Amino acid sequence: MSEPAEISPLTLSRLPLYLRCLRQLQEKGTTHVSSSQLAQQFELSASLIRKDLAQFGEFGIRGTGYRVDELVDRLNGLLGLDRIHKMAVVGMGSLGSALARYLSVNDRPFKIVAAFDVDGGRVGSKLGHLIVHHSREIPEVIPETGARIAVLAVPASAAQKCYEDLTDSGIEAVLNFAPIRLKRNPAVRTKSVDFQIYLEELAYFLRS
Amino acid sequence: MSEPAEISPLTLSRLPLYLRCLRQLQEKGTTHVSSSQLAQQFELSASLIRKDLAQFGEFGIRGTGYRVDELVDRLNGLLGLDRIHKMAVVGMGSLGSALARYLSVNDRPFKIVAAFDVDGGRVGSKLGHLIVHHSREIPEVIPETGARIAVLAVPASAAQKCYEDLTDSGIEAVLNFAPIRLKRNPAVRTKSVDFQIYLEELAYFLRS
Repeated sequence: MSEPAEISPLTLSRLPLYLRCLRQLQEKGTTHVSSSQLAQQFELSASLIRKDLAQFGEFGIRGTGYRVDELVDRLNGLLGLDRIHKMAVVGMGSLGSALARYLSVNDRPFKIVAAFDVDGGRVGSKLGHLIVHHSREIPEVIPETGARIAVLAVPASAAQKCYEDLTDSGIEAVLNFAPIRLKRNPAVRTKSVDFQIYLEELAYFLRS
Repeated sequence: MSEPAEISPLTLSRLPLYLRCLRQLQEKGTTHVSSSQLAQQFELSASLIRKDLAQFGEFGIRGTGYRVDELVDRLNGLLGLDRIHKMAVVGMGSLGSALARYLSVNDRPFKIVAAFDVDGGRVGSKLGHLIVHHSREIPEVIPETGARIAVLAVPASAAQKCYEDLTDSGIEAVLNFAPIRLKRNPAVRTKSVDFQIYLEELAYFLRS
């Protein structure tokens, strides 16, 4: 697959979604899919799919469409999912532990190499083969492990400090679950997942 | 606050974010904030803030800005957060339980009134005052409880069926955490939170 100099942020945000849909088809044993079938089945836009994928020289064959396995492999390669990404998890409360468990199962390319908390009952406990470190050890432990991506699942009050410690220690991408608007480091890719915000957006439609 | 006939989806998606930022200011004791201060502190767009809020007749006062408490109250009212929203949780695995715990703490307006699972070890167990029901009881239990919003935290393979049972039983909004692209009911507000997709988007920036 040819790679354009830069993928537009909007295209990029759709590629993992296409991958999700294609994996669902793979599981069902579907070998070929056209952009219009993809669009119809998953409520996407056929023209957008064609436009997005054509950026990488990926063209469906008229009447046959895309080969599902091939397209999955290519999207995996393009997104960098064909290698292992070492990940740190900060905050091993119920949400952090659940996320750690959830994200480390199956053949996902994200491998947890470090875990942190501040709670005396959790520090020193085991997460699989790992020992949970105290969060103040972030500056030492992160460079040792080579983690480049981190999941932040600490209370709002602790999030900014942890975020800065992580990004000062070499972390290049953060998935933040703390219910706070972080002051971001512009050199670090930061994505926030705020459940309360999602629920509040849904609540609007329940007003009547 | 005057209410326009319809809030644009983009404005709506930003209102809970403004609320998040304003609550952070409230906690710090800030009483007034201008759109440009809000924008600078939280990396938002000042002109967008002014435009979004002006739709509801909410104008900052030159030199003083918005009154934080007042604006929080108004946004709460506008989003329907000044009343209780009865919520069901389907899937009481580690992620579902963590979400249930997380979403039911504090003074949030989302009140869990029903919980479901299919696992023999979980069905019949207690979640606070609630008993976890078997997911096949969704059609009976949902109408009894009056839940209108549901959190779906089941494995991908079970998600579509649970989603349909929920929406057939009167649920009007669903926050889906199952890693699957659901076939949506157009009458139901559905929002999906897919951690794997978020990580995959971040992974792209770690390719080098």
